[in-house]
Amino acid sequence: MLLRNNERLIDQLTEADVLSYRAWLQYNPVKDEEYKQQIEAVLSVVTVKETSIIIDAALSELSLGLKEMCAFQPAITTQSNQNGLHITIEDTQGKETFHITYDQSQLYLSAGDDRGVLYGVYHLLRQIQLKTPLEQFGVKEAPKNPIRMINQWDDMNGEVERGYAGKSFFYDQYQFIKDRTRVKDYARLLSSTGINAISINNVNVHENETDLIFDRYLADVKQTADIFSMYGIDLYLSINYAAPMEKGLSTADPLDDGVKAFWKDRAKVIYDNIPHFGGFLVKADSENRPGPFTYGRNHAEGANMLAEALAPYGGKVIWRCFVYNCKQDWRDRQTDRARAAYDHFLPLDGEFLDNVILQIKNGPMDFQVREPISPLIGGLEKTNYLLEFQIAQEYLGQQKHLVYLVPQWKEVLDFDTYQKGEDTRVKDLVSGNVLNQKHSGIVAVSNVGIDVNWTGHLMAQLNLYGYGRMIWNPDLSSEVIALEWIKQTFGHDEALVQTLLNIVMPSWETYENYTSPLGIGWMVNISHHYGPNIDGYEYDKWGTYHFADRDGVGVDRTKETGSGYSTQYHKKNFEKYNDVTTCPDELLLFFHHVPYTHQLHSGKTVIQHIYDTHFKGVEEVEQMIEHFTSLHGAIDEARFDSVMERLDHQLYMAKEWRDIVNTYFYRKSGIDDAHGRKIYA
Amino acid sequence: MLLRNNERLIDQLTEADVLSYRAWLQYNPVKDEEYKQQIEAVLSVVTVKETSIIIDAALSELSLGLKEMCAFQPAITTQSNQNGLHITIEDTQGKETFHITYDQSQLYLSAGDDRGVLYGVYHLLRQIQLKTPLEQFGVKEAPKNPIRMINQWDDMNGEVERGYAGKSFFYDQYQFIKDRTRVKDYARLLSSTGINAISINNVNVHENETDLIFDRYLADVKQTADIFSMYGIDLYLSINYAAPMEKGLSTADPLDDGVKAFWKDRAKVIYDNIPHFGGFLVKADSENRPGPFTYGRNHAEGANMLAEALAPYGGKVIWRCFVYNCKQDWRDRQTDRARAAYDHFLPLDGEFLDNVILQIKNGPMDFQVREPISPLIGGLEKTNYLLEFQIAQEYLGQQKHLVYLVPQWKEVLDFDTYQKGEDTRVKDLVSGNVLNQKHSGIVAVSNVGIDVNWTGHLMAQLNLYGYGRMIWNPDLSSEVIALEWIKQTFGHDEALVQTLLNIVMPSWETYENYTSPLGIGWMVNISHHYGPNIDGYEYDKWGTYHFADRDGVGVDRTKETGSGYSTQYHKKNFEKYNDVTTCPDELLLFFHHVPYTHQLHSGKTVIQHIYDTHFKGVEEVEQMIEHFTSLHGAIDEARFDSVMERLDHQLYMAKEWRDIVNTYFYRKSGIDDAHGRKIYA
Repeated sequence: MLLRNNERLIDQLTEADVLSYRAWLQYNPVKDEEYKQQIEAVLSVVTVKETSIIIDAALSELSLGLKEMCAFQPAITTQSNQNGLHITIEDTQGKETFHITYDQSQLYLSAGDDRGVLYGVYHLLRQIQLKTPLEQFGVKEAPKNPIRMINQWDDMNGEVERGYAGKSFFYDQYQFIKDRTRVKDYARLLSSTGINAISINNVNVHENETDLIFDRYLADVKQTADIFSMYGIDLYLSINYAAPMEKGLSTADPLDDGVKAFWKDRAKVIYDNIPHFGGFLVKADSENRPGPFTYGRNHAEGANMLAEALAPYGGKVIWRCFVYNCKQDWRDRQTDRARAAYDHFLPLDGEFLDNVILQIKNGPMDFQVREPISPLIGGLEKTNYLLEFQIAQEYLGQQKHLVYLVPQWKEVLDFDTYQKGEDTRVKDLVSGNVLNQKHSGIVAVSNVGIDVNWTGHLMAQLNLYGYGRMIWNPDLSSEVIALEWIKQTFGHDEALVQTLLNIVMPSWETYENYTSPLGIGWMVNISHHYGPNIDGYEYDKWGTYHFADRDGVGVDRTKETGSGYSTQYHKKNFEKYNDVTTCPDELLLFFHHVPYTHQLHSGKTVIQHIYDTHFKGVEEVEQMIEHFTSLHGAIDEARFDSVMERLDHQLYMAKEWRDIVNTYFYRKSGIDDAHGRKIYA
Repeated sequence: MLLRNNERLIDQLTEADVLSYRAWLQYNPVKDEEYKQQIEAVLSVVTVKETSIIIDAALSELSLGLKEMCAFQPAITTQSNQNGLHITIEDTQGKETFHITYDQSQLYLSAGDDRGVLYGVYHLLRQIQLKTPLEQFGVKEAPKNPIRMINQWDDMNGEVERGYAGKSFFYDQYQFIKDRTRVKDYARLLSSTGINAISINNVNVHENETDLIFDRYLADVKQTADIFSMYGIDLYLSINYAAPMEKGLSTADPLDDGVKAFWKDRAKVIYDNIPHFGGFLVKADSENRPGPFTYGRNHAEGANMLAEALAPYGGKVIWRCFVYNCKQDWRDRQTDRARAAYDHFLPLDGEFLDNVILQIKNGPMDFQVREPISPLIGGLEKTNYLLEFQIAQEYLGQQKHLVYLVPQWKEVLDFDTYQKGEDTRVKDLVSGNVLNQKHSGIVAVSNVGIDVNWTGHLMAQLNLYGYGRMIWNPDLSSEVIALEWIKQTFGHDEALVQTLLNIVMPSWETYENYTSPLGIGWMVNISHHYGPNIDGYEYDKWGTYHFADRDGVGVDRTKETGSGYSTQYHKKNFEKYNDVTTCPDELLLFFHHVPYTHQLHSGKTVIQHIYDTHFKGVEEVEQMIEHFTSLHGAIDEARFDSVMERLDHQLYMAKEWRDIVNTYFYRKSGIDDAHGRKIYA
């Protein structure tokens, strides 16, 4: 834990830096002497017979945590007649599960495998940080999602694509950063929330990154994979689909024998070096990346070829569905980017090998503040898939704005697709519970970088923590997750906890209020995606339009007069979205082009809703700041100041958003605000 | 003449490259044997008594030209009794003047100084290239503008700010490029059109460029200055106003004694090395550059301090007037960037030392396709100044679009300011003829780079040529200048000459037609300034707005209801601009906010004018291409193809402009095109 911003490595962090760096693994000293003694009584001896590198890591974490929190280190023993914590692995339980019982001063941790031990230990440490009474330690846990993954978008030049927390701590100047302390601490943070898979390079694979699967970098990859595997995390690499051509072949056609041999050879070399290698992540035929389309092959042919190469070793191919025409003519009103993933992949349902897993982005457009869920989920029947979220706040304030994302993600997970009748929710589909896919789960783009607090905005740590906790158990509420994080990160002061909860809980809706309204999305500056620019994408090639004119705004995606995107949903949802009278307000402009005077279910007109939410959004940020200001003195100065600085900027930007959105629509509609507030002409 | 794109230096140019590289100094063999003999008869012996490095360069150019065109080299002699060309310097004539007479097979070139000799020689060479009959060689020429300057915006990293012809041929990787062949050929091209001053580094002076006036680079600067001085061109450097602080002083306050001493010392060192050094070019307190404002001093105090340092050596300080608030709040409707230069500098009229020269950008905003002229010209009475044009097509198609700029510039020069009553034209003010300033003239930002044809778009050579010729003699017509260039560059074929003339002459108006209408300007993508983006600057900090709403468009700069910018003009112009009924159509939206239904003098409404000009602009580009296509075979393939490729792109972009502008205003106004043409909704 010896890294800081800009310098990457120093011998000493300031005390303030340590608090930022440790994130939710603060392990601060327990001050309640009685509690401390109770803990010591049941944890001073740990009995465990099995051994593995993961169990070693778990015990090492337990020792660290207990030493820091309770000032003792447990004795580890294989003698089963000792008092204390008894760790056993019971094959009858599922993988990654653990079962903790507390009985007469004895604590039993029975796990399905060594990962279960690790998660059980993190559970214990979390309970101590949360000051949970010993009697309530008992729990039986199994992760809901089999694959719980993180995508790094790190480039080997040291940049992080869509990174808002400084440079990469994996790479610099086309080399792996030698000191892996930071990588190891990242693995600890991730595994403490239950993450079990990671891809370590950007899905846009450039020239140097193509070599990650070759001798040039393979030893470094192995070393990194070994660190993550200590913490039960499988390492994946993003690959360049055109890699064969970079290495002298004349084609990358997946049906070409030379290409097949190339990938089989690569798979063998990789697994000879890294037996626990996870597999490949592939962005193909997407935003100018190469793929099977070049050779007249479809995505199944493209993915299956790689899958065959990896199959002998148990490797997987994760294949992104973010495929659309990124050179659309803005004049073309027929093409609809929202349709693209479904149109490309649903016809291939059932054609993918069983070690191929599709990665489906939420939503159908691209990580906007509000979108309907991708209809591929609820559509595909016979295909493995992962749902893809983005923890990095690309379109949600780039970690300069405080936005708690778990409430947004939970709306997605709780969505009822009706695929198998009522109550076929996204969370049950992606977990594999409904369709019994061989592989399934959730993946997200990370939000970390070299900044000492990992996430740029200190409060964005909550999204990294919350993501892991939520995909472990999607039935945890947003509040519970936030409370866990707040207490572990800032302590238990009641007013502080409640104040921070009040700040984070409505923050997604606040951000939505002052940015793009009613599900229309975009309206940001092009390419870097920060700050308001209402027409920023309106006349460009990216398929992202709002069609605002003097009369109205919105995209007609209905069956009858629009792009027909609404038909990609099952009947109940299709009907709800397709009909302007039943379409939910928050998605109205995603599905319908309506006059500014259209009346929402809320009773307001569209234009008045725009004005009201934008004034409200700014007021909410002002309240956020008021709340946070009240914590002065209750949070250490460094963390307080760093958050406050970003909040001030958020307010400035919220006003920019408010005024630019309001002025834009006032100039177009000519309709005055019903409440006579200031709208610049 | 041995340089090409990307490689900077090669031993051999292809034949096609040579044609591109030689630009208007083709010196192609004269095919008319009779004419060749006449030339040889009067030019085979050149008598000249005086000598100087400039005269040497002139004679060397004459030898080169005659050898290439007429296959002989003149004998140079000091014997006055020989037949042939007699070169003399007559002190009674003005500086830089020359007088050529042809009398009974004798040619007399009498010049005011050695620069006059150089210009006279270029005149002779031009006449030969133009096939002018010997009897018509006689002429008496004096440059209208004393200072005829070029600004390079080259950075020492090798980039050219707003450069559209490849990288710099002055610098690469913070070093001067060792081989100066290209610089020397550039000096030849410039001096052949009469240029007599150049600043060789970007007005935005960064860290490394600050050192141009220090030991690190001074020898390189001297070497470059020596090359230019061979061709009668004074070398200037852009300086960093904060240089004293970069060198250890605690302030750059112009009234600080230490700062004064710093600059006096610098001046001494520079002139000890480069006695013919021109002086400093300064962008101060402009777009985040440092300047006297930081210390509570005004521009006169800031400039005079430098002027005092340079005065002992005859050096000049050229001080840019491009000073405005570049952090304007878009909500602020009081501040008007157009007013800024006048508001800043008119109150200082008479306070500048006589070796300070203000550099006044045309127009008051920033090199848009159409602006009124800066009212500082016509305003200042007791101050030296230069008018600044931009040959680089920053806002005029970036040398991907064919736009002949001389017609635009001539409109500026012919503008009547009424400063001293009727017929006080800009061209007479900037030349010093009216106010008798000690220093005056014209300056422009260059459009050259490492591309083999110098200017990226081959046809943009015409703007570099035309600029020089026009400021030598502002009474030359745009047609005459274009004809000179076409014949020297492509030869004399009558159809070819007429076709190219038909292409270039209307091209400025064509560009205006398909881009931003009626003097409103901007509507481009932010920062790189290429391609349409109607709201690109509308909600930003740069003071550049159009205020289009559902009812109308334009900026109210009237006295009564607007910013009052119109009051910066003398009465006749003020009245014309201030009154919506007399304001010229092409500037209407610069001065007035009017409804889309406002009727222009042309009889059309504003909205119909927008539609009509945008359809027309695209049609004109199509005609341009039709014309140029007819030249297939008449121009060598390489130059033909390079121009055609850019014309195709220009047509694509013209359509983008047309459709985006039309759609934008159709969506806002809701008014149909009277002719029912396709406007995308």
